[in-house]
Amino acid sequence: MHSPSEQDYIQQLSIDCVIFGYQQQQLSVLIPKLHFKGDFWALPSGFVYQTESIDEAAHRILEGRTGIRNIYMEQFRVFGKTERSSRQFMDQLVQLNEEMALLQELQQKEYDWITRRFVSIGYYALVDINQVKPQRHDIDESIDWYPVKQLPPLIMDHAEIVQEALYTLRRDLDTRLNAYNLLPETFTMKEVQQLYEAIFDKPFAANNFPRKILEQNILERLEKRYTGAANKAPYLYRLRNHSPANEPRP
Amino acid sequence: MHSPSEQDYIQQLSIDCVIFGYQQQQLSVLIPKLHFKGDFWALPSGFVYQTESIDEAAHRILEGRTGIRNIYMEQFRVFGKTERSSRQFMDQLVQLNEEMALLQELQQKEYDWITRRFVSIGYYALVDINQVKPQRHDIDESIDWYPVKQLPPLIMDHAEIVQEALYTLRRDLDTRLNAYNLLPETFTMKEVQQLYEAIFDKPFAANNFPRKILEQNILERLEKRYTGAANKAPYLYRLRNHSPANEPRP
Repeated sequence: MHSPSEQDYIQQLSIDCVIFGYQQQQLSVLIPKLHFKGDFWALPSGFVYQTESIDEAAHRILEGRTGIRNIYMEQFRVFGKTERSSRQFMDQLVQLNEEMALLQELQQKEYDWITRRFVSIGYYALVDINQVKPQRHDIDESIDWYPVKQLPPLIMDHAEIVQEALYTLRRDLDTRLNAYNLLPETFTMKEVQQLYEAIFDKPFAANNFPRKILEQNILERLEKRYTGAANKAPYLYRLRNHSPANEPRP
Repeated sequence: MHSPSEQDYIQQLSIDCVIFGYQQQQLSVLIPKLHFKGDFWALPSGFVYQTESIDEAAHRILEGRTGIRNIYMEQFRVFGKTERSSRQFMDQLVQLNEEMALLQELQQKEYDWITRRFVSIGYYALVDINQVKPQRHDIDESIDWYPVKQLPPLIMDHAEIVQEALYTLRRDLDTRLNAYNLLPETFTMKEVQQLYEAIFDKPFAANNFPRKILEQNILERLEKRYTGAANKAPYLYRLRNHSPANEPRP
């Protein structure tokens, strides 16, 4: 845990990152396990330097814990309840790990700083698991992908933060497919359906899914068909350069 | 301008409110004009007390400037660029209004506090203009509804904040119709279409709109028809108690 200083960071503001990974038709979340007694899993989190934007802070935090750079991340919600603080978790951590030098280094002032009320901005990303190499930080015992349906117990409100990220991921999937980079250059309708089924955790009717997805106007059907199959060759698609209608966002 | 104290508020965190109003098929925004020389329009804004949640702060700020209570508000985005500060605006304000007692009361320390970098959480609401009575605050010269297409010049990044709120309003309209309370108990398809046209600022094809909106599964068609019209009576609809599919949000 790098020592936060009152001068360097914006007070009482933190960032929590939910990194979704997709591989073999399964959706997972990247979660470090802390290198302390007591089995603590916590989302990659951190603070905002006075000299960086909140987006820059989110990317820095992500890279520091995972080695991942330059991926598409987006804020999805602020968690700002009055009682939101790491005090309970930190007290428990200290109690179980009294002998550890890392914690002894934490001065009382820093401890008080960290355990104040924090308003946290949630950021999420969705990446191809094959393309990232998670890296352990000093304070991590391990860092792993956990299936979104079998997450370990998370500290504080981090489980709620994952659920809110999942809600946003599903809501915005149609308009973010380009950014996520999860599909090859060209692909079949079946590959798209598998991606949607993994993210929504439900089957879509094969006779209805193509119409629904094509109505969104995010895919473009190519002349060339997929030729690997022995049976009737399916159409190939690619992503349009999608800009949603009526989107005044700068 | 009530004097902010360093102890009472979370540092460098503010809230900006975009209040959309709907009336006579037009979408407007509620904006106070500041009671200072220089024609300054600014969104209803404020800070977050240590003892309140960010949602509570948003409602308090809204009520303080508008007299509106208990309306549905939702956070939509955080504005967190490094250079985001009211310094330039405040310097200009002070220069133009040097003789004003209100500004003289602002101690240097408070001035420095207010003009630091602020990360701001945007909240938006959509209300029926007939149902609210905007109220002037001490520091407002006036408070008025401005058509969203003819907004006055706004301070800082407030124009961008309005655009982001508009983006979110359009994106989420289908799932929030209930909360907004803009339609009567029962209504015709034409009334729904007029609402959508005002908010999206574009016409929808009358032969296509009903199918599109009914596919969203937010409306329920009644047996009873509208009987006021002399010509063929249109169907009446009401809002379903809508809970969007796949919405894990708590």
